[in-house]
Amino acid sequence: MSWKNYLSDRQATYLEDFRAFLSIPSVSAQPAHSQDVQRAAAWLAERFKRAGFLQAEVLPTAGHPVVLAEYCPYPDRPTVLFYGHYDVQPADNPERWNSPPFEPTIVDGRIVARGASDMKGQVMAFLLAAEALIATGALGLNLKALIEGEEEIGSPHLPEFIERNKERLRCDMIINGDSGQLSETTPLLSLGVRGICGLEFDLTGPSHDLHSGSWGGQVQNPLHAMAELVASLHKPDGSVAVKGFYDDVEPLSPELREWYKKIPWDEEEMKRKLGVPAFYGEAGYTPWERITGRPTLEVNGMWGGYTGPGGMTVIPSTAHAKITCRLVPHQDPDRIVALVKAHLEEHLPKGVRLEVRVKEAGAPAFRMRADHPVAQAAKEVLTELYGVPPVETMFGGSVPILSTLKKLLGHDPVSFGFGLEDELIHSPNEFFRLSSFEKGQRGYAMLLLQLAK
Amino acid sequence: MSWKNYLSDRQATYLEDFRAFLSIPSVSAQPAHSQDVQRAAAWLAERFKRAGFLQAEVLPTAGHPVVLAEYCPYPDRPTVLFYGHYDVQPADNPERWNSPPFEPTIVDGRIVARGASDMKGQVMAFLLAAEALIATGALGLNLKALIEGEEEIGSPHLPEFIERNKERLRCDMIINGDSGQLSETTPLLSLGVRGICGLEFDLTGPSHDLHSGSWGGQVQNPLHAMAELVASLHKPDGSVAVKGFYDDVEPLSPELREWYKKIPWDEEEMKRKLGVPAFYGEAGYTPWERITGRPTLEVNGMWGGYTGPGGMTVIPSTAHAKITCRLVPHQDPDRIVALVKAHLEEHLPKGVRLEVRVKEAGAPAFRMRADHPVAQAAKEVLTELYGVPPVETMFGGSVPILSTLKKLLGHDPVSFGFGLEDELIHSPNEFFRLSSFEKGQRGYAMLLLQLAK
Repeated sequence: MSWKNYLSDRQATYLEDFRAFLSIPSVSAQPAHSQDVQRAAAWLAERFKRAGFLQAEVLPTAGHPVVLAEYCPYPDRPTVLFYGHYDVQPADNPERWNSPPFEPTIVDGRIVARGASDMKGQVMAFLLAAEALIATGALGLNLKALIEGEEEIGSPHLPEFIERNKERLRCDMIINGDSGQLSETTPLLSLGVRGICGLEFDLTGPSHDLHSGSWGGQVQNPLHAMAELVASLHKPDGSVAVKGFYDDVEPLSPELREWYKKIPWDEEEMKRKLGVPAFYGEAGYTPWERITGRPTLEVNGMWGGYTGPGGMTVIPSTAHAKITCRLVPHQDPDRIVALVKAHLEEHLPKGVRLEVRVKEAGAPAFRMRADHPVAQAAKEVLTELYGVPPVETMFGGSVPILSTLKKLLGHDPVSFGFGLEDELIHSPNEFFRLSSFEKGQRGYAMLLLQLAK
Repeated sequence: MSWKNYLSDRQATYLEDFRAFLSIPSVSAQPAHSQDVQRAAAWLAERFKRAGFLQAEVLPTAGHPVVLAEYCPYPDRPTVLFYGHYDVQPADNPERWNSPPFEPTIVDGRIVARGASDMKGQVMAFLLAAEALIATGALGLNLKALIEGEEEIGSPHLPEFIERNKERLRCDMIINGDSGQLSETTPLLSLGVRGICGLEFDLTGPSHDLHSGSWGGQVQNPLHAMAELVASLHKPDGSVAVKGFYDDVEPLSPELREWYKKIPWDEEEMKRKLGVPAFYGEAGYTPWERITGRPTLEVNGMWGGYTGPGGMTVIPSTAHAKITCRLVPHQDPDRIVALVKAHLEEHLPKGVRLEVRVKEAGAPAFRMRADHPVAQAAKEVLTELYGVPPVETMFGGSVPILSTLKKLLGHDPVSFGFGLEDELIHSPNEFFRLSSFEKGQRGYAMLLLQLAK
C-alpha cells in the first residue's frame, strides 16, 4: 500500500486522535493545569509509540517534561530531528469562545480549539506522516521528535535539556514545525528571524510627586528627562544612536539586496493594512531590509505622571520605559543590552537618577542560506504541494528556539509548518483548517522522503 | 465693651457655631450633597444676619448658590469685600478618617472635620470678627462678604455671577480669605501667584497596536515621536523652546530681583525636603525667580504602550501627554495654549498624526505691589499679631479667583487667611487649629480696623 493511501484511508480516525490531543488542556503557564500538561505528554508519547516509533519517552526537566520519540533503525542513513511543542496558550475569557476551548468543535471545515493551530495540529501532522511512512516501509531515514511542554512560557528549561541530552539528540538535519505558510494558496520559505534583547528603566527625580505650580521650573521633571533620553536613542535619519550598536552588523551584500527585491511589497496596501499615514525607518533601506535585515530599538512602553481623565498638576517622582531591540546576525544580545545601558547612563539628563533592569536572556538572530540542502528540499516539496514556488523571505520577529537548536545541535533548523496567519493563535476561537491538517500530513511525508534521497 | 472682650467672652458659643457649620456636608463636587450645599448656604446667610449684617441672601447661579452679605451703613466710608467659599472637598474613604468627617471632633487643640481649614474656619473667623466690630460700634467702614459654593470645583459660575452683580459688589478693597500663614510663628504676605493654562494631545501612528518584531524599523513608533516632540519643548538651558512663549514676559526688574533675594531659601534643606539629587531649571535665575517669576511648561502625564509587569513587544497605536504652563503677568492663557499647539504641529515627527485638546479656560497670573495700601495694612496687622513681620513672597501655584476678582471688580485682592500647610486639606483628617480660629477672629478685626483708618 502507498503511504498516500495509508493516510487517506485513516483521516476519520486521525481526526479523532487530533480531537483527543486537543481535549487535554496542556496550558503551560497555569499551575492549575500542570497535571494536564503531564497528561498531554503521556498521551503524546503513547501515540508516538503507536505510530511505530521504537522509543517514546516523557523526560523530566526542571519544569514541564519533554516528549522524545525515536525511530532510528538505519545506522547508515541520515537522522532528521523534528522540533515542536505540545503545550498551549491559556484560554481565559471562556465567554469570548463560541465553543469551549478544550472541546474541539468542527465548523465549516475548521477545527476550533485552543492549540489547534499553535501547534498540536502540526505535531499530529508530523506524527501521522511518520506513521504512514514507517507502516508502508517508505521511510528511508532515522527520525527523532523533540516535543517540549514550555514553548508558550519561553522554553526556560529546553536549552539545559538539550545540553544534557546532546548525544541522544544528535542528528543531521532539523525541521521546526512551529511555523506556517503565507496563505492557503501561497507557500512560504522562511530563511531567518531577528534576535531580541530587552531592558526597562526608571528615572527618579523628587522622592515624591510634587505640585507643578509650587515647584515647576526648579526641579527636573522626570517626564522631560525621559523624553530627552528616549529621543537621544535615535538619530534624525532613523538609525539607532547607541554607540557601538551597529559594530557587529554586516553590511547587506549586493546578493542579499537583490534577493530582498524579490519579496512582494505593495506600499499602498501595506499602509492601509497598518493604518499608518506614512512609512518611517532607517534611511537607505527598503521596507523588508528594514524589517528583517537591520537591527532596531523600540520603546514598547513609556509612562509616568497623571494619566486619568481631566488634569492634575503634578511633577511625578518617576518615569518609566521598556525597550526591546531586534538583532541581526553577529549581534550579541548581552552586548547590545550593555551598550544601551551605557548610552542611558551617558546621556542621563541632570536632576534625575537612573535604574536599569535587564530582562531575562535575549536570543541572537537566526539566518540560513537559501541554498541549504534542507531548505532546497522544503522548497521543492512546497512547490509540488501548492503548485507554486514558496515566497522566500525572512521575518522581523524572533524565534529563540531556532538559534538555540543551531547552537546546541549544530544544524540550521528549517521551518516547515502549516499554520496560517488568520487562525487566532493566542486568541479566543483559535482554529486549524482541516485541509491544512491533511495537507500537513502529506507535506511532512513528502519532505521526509525528499530528505531521504 | 471692647471688641476684644466681646470676642473672648463668646469663644465657647462661637466654637459651637463653627461645629454646626462643619456638620453640614457641603460637598460641591457630589450631586448627592446638593441639598447639603443649599443647607450650608442658608445656614451661613442666617448666621451673617445674626452677626449684624443688614442684608444676607442666598443668590442663585447656574450651579450652587452664592451667599452675599452686606453691612453698608456709611455712605462716605470705604467698602471692603471679603471673598471666601462655603463648599468643601469630598470626604470619601471614611475608613481613613479617625472620626467621621462631618462630625467635628476636637483633639489636642485641633478641630478635625472636612472643610475645617479649607475654609469654613476662615469664613467663620471673618464673620465673627465683623460681628464683634459691629456689635461694639468699632467698625468704621462698609462690609460685603461674597461666599461662593463652587470653589472646590473650579468656580465655574462665579465670573458670570460677579458680572451680573457688579454694581452690588462694588467695593474699594478686597480681602481673599482662602489663604494661609507660613507657620504658627511666622506670618506670610503673598504678593502674587502664577497663571495657568493647559492642553493634552495624542499622537497616533498605526491604526492598531503592532508587533514590534514584525514591524519594528518600518513604521514610526508613537512613543519615539512623543519623546522627540516633548524633548523639543525645552532648550538645553532649561528654557521653554516654544516660539513666542516669552514674548509678553517682562524682564525681572533690578528692584524685584533685590526683593527676591530676601526670601529665605536653604538649598540643602530644600533638596532633602523634595528628595531631589540636584535642582534644575532655567539658566540665569534664582530658585524663587524660577518658581514664581518665570513661566514654565510642565508635562504632567505622558503614556503609551505596555506598562504592566514583564515585557510585551508592541509598537502602540497611540501615545498621550498632558501639559500645563504656569504664567507670569501679561501672558495670556489662550495665546500661550495656541503657541504650544503651533509648536506641536510644527515639530510633529514624521509618520504620526496629532490631536490636541485644549482644557477649559486658563487663568492669568496675579501680582500686586508690596506698597499697595491693603497689603501694607495686612503687613502691619500680621507684624503685631505674630510679633515678627511677615515673609513677603509670591507663589508658583495658581489661584484663578485672584485675577478674576481684580479683572471684574478692579482691585487687587489681598490674601489674608489662617490656614497652615500641614492641615491636611483635601485629605482625610483635615483639621484647623483652635488657636488659628481665635487668632483669625482677632486678625480680621485688626485688619478691618486698620483699613478703616
